[in-house]
Formats: sequence, C-alpha cells, structure tokens
Amino acid sequence: PSHILGTNRIFRIACIPGDGIGIDITKAAIKVLQKLSDTVGTFTFDFEIFDWSSTTFKERGYYMPPDGFEQLKAYDAIYFGAVGWPDVPDHISLWGLILPIRNSLNQYVNVRPTRILRGITSPLSNCPPTSLNWVIIRENSEGEYAGHGGTTHAHSSHTIATEVSIFTRIGCERIFRFAFETARSRPRKKLTMVTKSNAQRHGMVLWDQIFAEIKEEYPDVEVDKMLVDAMTVRMVLHPQSLDTIVATNLHADILSDLAAALSGSIGIAASSNLDPTRENPSMFEPIHGSAPDIAGKGIANPVGAFWSAAEMVRWLGFEEAANVLMECVENVTEASIKTRDLGGEKGTEEVTEAVCLEIEK
Amino acid sequence: PSHILGTNRIFRIACIPGDGIGIDITKAAIKVLQKLSDTVGTFTFDFEIFDWSSTTFKERGYYMPPDGFEQLKAYDAIYFGAVGWPDVPDHISLWGLILPIRNSLNQYVNVRPTRILRGITSPLSNCPPTSLNWVIIRENSEGEYAGHGGTTHAHSSHTIATEVSIFTRIGCERIFRFAFETARSRPRKKLTMVTKSNAQRHGMVLWDQIFAEIKEEYPDVEVDKMLVDAMTVRMVLHPQSLDTIVATNLHADILSDLAAALSGSIGIAASSNLDPTRENPSMFEPIHGSAPDIAGKGIANPVGAFWSAAEMVRWLGFEEAANVLMECVENVTEASIKTRDLGGEKGTEEVTEAVCLEIEK
Ligand SMILES: CC(C)[C@H](C(=O)O)[C@@H](O)C(=O)O
Ligand SMILES: CC(C)[C@H](C(=O)O)[C@@H](O)C(=O)O
Repeated sequence: PSHILGTNRIFRIACIPGDGIGIDITKAAIKVLQKLSDTVGTFTFDFEIFDWSSTTFKERGYYMPPDGFEQLKAYDAIYFGAVGWPDVPDHISLWGLILPIRNSLNQYVNVRPTRILRGITSPLSNCPPTSLNWVIIRENSEGEYAGHGGTTHAHSSHTIATEVSIFTRIGCERIFRFAFETARSRPRKKLTMVTKSNAQRHGMVLWDQIFAEIKEEYPDVEVDKMLVDAMTVRMVLHPQSLDTIVATNLHADILSDLAAALSGSIGIAASSNLDPTRENPSMFEPIHGSAPDIAGKGIANPVGAFWSAAEMVRWLGFEEAANVLMECVENVTEASIKTRDLGGEKGTEEVTEAVCLEIEK
Repeated sequence: PSHILGTNRIFRIACIPGDGIGIDITKAAIKVLQKLSDTVGTFTFDFEIFDWSSTTFKERGYYMPPDGFEQLKAYDAIYFGAVGWPDVPDHISLWGLILPIRNSLNQYVNVRPTRILRGITSPLSNCPPTSLNWVIIRENSEGEYAGHGGTTHAHSSHTIATEVSIFTRIGCERIFRFAFETARSRPRKKLTMVTKSNAQRHGMVLWDQIFAEIKEEYPDVEVDKMLVDAMTVRMVLHPQSLDTIVATNLHADILSDLAAALSGSIGIAASSNLDPTRENPSMFEPIHGSAPDIAGKGIANPVGAFWSAAEMVRWLGFEEAANVLMECVENVTEASIKTRDLGGEKGTEEVTEAVCLEIEK
C-alpha cells in the first residue's frame, strides 16, 4: 500500500481490538466508519480484525506473531482498541503489543487533540468551551519509553534497578519540527514546550538545546517553555493561554490524560500514532485503557474511539469527511445521548446508533 | 544539635531565602514564626540567614561553600525560600543548592499536604472543601532525580543523551514505610500508590514489587495502585476518593503541583523535606519557585511559606502551636485578606501583618 493521500479508493484497515472495552469500542468505531463511507461515498474501508490480545497471549505465549510487523505493513492504517488485562502484568502486555508497534513502525509522533465537545462540560468552573482548545504533540519513540534499564542484585537486600531515558538529536529534531508545523497550521501559531531540565540535567538539557535550535526555523511561531510540574498548574488555572504543546513521551502521557479529564472525561480523548514519512501505516487509538471494571457491560464511552476514527479518516486524506464525523458526534453529545462517565445513562450501542443516524441525515 | 523533639527550648534555624520571591516570603515566614514563639512562649527561634543564592553564585562561582553541609548540620531545621534566576541555567542553580541539600542530608521524604483552606475556592466546580484532603508522600532521594546520565557525541549530528532513574530496595522500602505510617495516622487509613510500570519495566517494576511486600506489614491500611497518567484524571474527577498518596520523585513533583492548583493556587502549597531518622536537620519550603516575574514587587503569596513554617513547628514537636498558626492563616484567608493569585488584592506584607494580628489575639 502507498500510505499516501488518496481519493475514491479502498483502504485496508488492520483492526486490533485487544482487551476489555477495546473490543466494545472497536466494534462501535467500525460501524460508524462503515456508515460514513457508505454515506460519503468517496472511499471504502476493508477491515481486517486481528485477535492479538491478552487472551491469545495466554494461549500462544505471544501477543504478535513473529511476522506481525510485516503483516501490519500491508495495511493503510491500524485501528487499535486497548490492551491490558489483570492476569497479565502490564509491562508484559504493553511491551507485547502497543509499545513495539509504535516503535517499530516509526510512529514517532503521537497527536492528542483536546477540546470541549458540544454538550460536555469541563470540571473546571471557569472554563467555557472556547477557552480549552489544545493539541498535545507527544514524542512517541524514545525518551522515558526507550525500554532501557535493568535490575542488579535481584531478590537480595540490596537490589537496584534503573530506567534509562534516551534522547537523540534526530528524535528531538523531528518531533519539534512536527510540533512547529502543527502550531503554524493553527490560528494562534503558538507552541509551548514542556521540559524538566531543572532537575534532569542530561537528556532534558539536550531536549532544550535542540528546541532552541529548531525554533530559529520558525520565526512566525510564538514559543514558550514550561516545567512539566508548573504546566499542570497552567492547564488548570489558565487553559486559554495554551494552544499547541510539545512534550516528551512520559510528560505528554501524563499531561494528555489531565487534558482529557479537564475536557470532561478520559472516554472522549483520541490519539494518532503517526509515521509522518508515510512509509509505514499510522495507528489510531482512543487514549483510555481496557477498563476491566466495565468491560463487556456495554457501557463504555465510544466517543474517544469515534474521534480517533475521524483522525484516521483525516490522515487518509479526507478532511471534510473527518469533520462531518466529528459534527455528528457532537450533535449526539449535545443531544445528551451520553454514557455514564459524562453524566448520561446511555450505553455504547445507543450512542453508536445515534451517531450513525446523524451521519445518514 | 539533637534534632529531636523538644519543649521549651531554643531552636537554631538556618534560613536560605535564595532568589526572587524566596527572599520576600522567607522574611514573612520569619516574622510570623517570631510572633508565634513570642505568643506561645514555650519555644524560641534563633534564625541565621545564609546568603546562598544565584547572586552570590555569580560573584563566587558556587552556591554552597565546600563546608556547606557541615554548616547546615549544626542547625535544628532549615527554612528554604526558592532558588533559580533567569541568568543561571536552571540545572546549575537547582543542582547547586536545593537538590544536593535534599540528597546529602538524607531528607528522603518530601511531604506535601493539600487541602482547601477556608476562604479559598477550588477551580473545580464540583469540589467542596471537604472533598479534597490529601497528603502526597514524595520519594526525595533517588528515582528520576538521581542525577545520573550523560551525553555522547555532543555537538554532532548524532548526539545522544540519557537520564538514568535509579531505584533501590532500601530507597523503596523506607519511603513506603513512611507512607504507610502516614496513612495509618489519618482517619481514612487509605494509601494510593502511583506507578508507571506498564511502560517502564525495570525500576518501576521493582517499585511495585517492594510495595507489594511492604503492604503486608500494614494489613490495617487500605491500598490501591494507580498509573500516574490515570492518577491525574482521578485527582480532577474524583478528588474525594483519595487520601494518602505515595509516588516517585518525578511523579510526585508533577502530582503535587496539580494538587496545589486544584486546591486554589501554587502559592499556598507547603512541603517538608524530612530525614525521619532525625540525624540531620529537615528542610521546609513552599513548593512554588522564585517567580522572577513578580519578585521584589511585594505581591508574592506568603501562605505556602506560613504553611511550611507550621510544618516545621510541628516537626520540632509543637503540634498545637502548628495548628494555631494554620488556624490564624485560615482566619486571614477567610477574611479575604489574599494576594492576587487567590483573586485578592493585598500584598505580602498586609497578609503577613494580618496573620501576626491573628496570632496575638
Ligand atoms: C497503555 C500505556 C502504555 C500508554 C502509554 O503510556 O503510552 C497509554 O497510557 C497511552 O497514553 O497511550
Ligand atoms: C525546583 C525543582 C528542582 C523542584 C523539584 O522538581 O523538586 C520543585 O519543582 C519542587 O517541587 O520542589
């Protein structure tokens, strides 16, 4: 496949529902995407379901088969539900599936848009919908998720273990360029860079240095720099002062969950794991997890899944169709057809049907 | 000095105002502490001011003199303002003063209480004062602040830099025991442990393992475990579900700033850097920084400084006097004698005078 922008064609989508509510919401996303392509008519999806999950891990001993990456490379995009189940240690499940895909398919950018959708209220009392409209650009290939580190003197009274964060010049340059391009494409042309170089004086200092270099290439973008701890304060107390945000793998992981909460619920938040070179398929996933406590009960919020689906449609070249889908989703939230996490009482299917009906209109 | 609990005696306090508003608020704290000892009458403070700061660094080339730690060890406690100034890189100033003190004086616990003081409103719309009452126990001696790491191929096109987080068995055991003791001493006996072991599979996994061991020693404490990203969501959406929290150096740094914002302002938050063995003096500091933008203007919020001073008084053995001080501070905030960050219009001195007047009553 070309992984390039297309019109009027068939896109092959690899779907990995994974575990828990990942299964419920992937089903919902497929339904809505099918309805969208039927209605818009300029593209078609060919969905293939991959059963890679904690269930198959327990049967087979692996999440992805040895040729898993090769298989995925044959698709135009990947749609991912969630992974993780109580009877498999989280670091096994995550490093068995989602993290290697991000790393091996060169998906070095994770884009996490946040805004307050119509009909949803922020838990902040002083936050009208217009004052929270952010895009968080997360470094997705190195930093605190490099996977390096180890344990010495295990099972002794003097065990020591390390986590090694790795920052490379190329890794920093490419994420900052992507962040500046994103900031430039938005009306406010404003980029906030997050760091913790006051306490972490090696890798984080390189991160700062390269940011200072790259910003020279973008004189039209207004920049500022925040320490990650102070950034949480600014997000809560001055949300309107922020627009595009760039942060390391871990910092953005934390800040994007906070952003989701401030915009109403973790259940609505979307993410795109992008390979901007388009040599590999990109992957789209809601930012919530597998939520074992509500799995299979039909009450998971599919909005984050729909938003992620819309971002996939956008990435495949259909900006207008993506906007239509988001319009429909917001018509539904505005009509108070919402799941419990948003104070509603509808189930996953009812919300899904309502979005499908909106698309038909 | 003994660093042990005392009654009716003179305490020698090393004061390091540092930079920016650190100077304003240390002055305010000393005034209030003096008023408190004059009024209560069972203890006296002997304050010694240390001029260690970014200003003296630029003159002398160092923040602390070579015998700095030895000097500090002669005191019963340390009161710290803030350090950092725009013309010194942050990693130089922080590693020149505050971080080595925490590390070298064995202050392996950082306690960060958070609650909504009378007269202060949370930015969360659904958060009455009673639903936010937390103590964050921060690991203060290792983890992401171990200082390890380095840079290879500097100034080349392929620079790589690392940050190494270090977790040791003893470091984990002692912080968890302190956290369990804290949880046990509070009415709800509830401890939430924060981790990111799903993505960080070496050091964070050791952290989890040792937590699982130590919790066996405290069967009367209810525990749960949260991923740091999901924790921000819980703090925003379900604040009443939390009580005592234990987290790594970096995670707790971020979460405690968020906690301060959710309780109204970073300007009110206090912290205690404790050596629980009492072999070394402990250090008390508001969690805000030097705030160059408002330094010297007389508008810095001294509440975090007073709260930190109260925690110092408590640590020195005067629980009742500490409570009196906090009562007086809250009488003042309730009377709307507040600085701008809290929506008021008073200056540092007016708030300080008001607290002194309350103490006299
Ligand atoms: C599941 C976990 C490994 C993942 C992450 O930390 O990246 C998730 O929290 C996310 O934000 O996508
Ligand atoms: C100034 C800085 C090094 C410090 C930290 O990160 O520990 C501060 O943010 C704090 O929380 O005390």
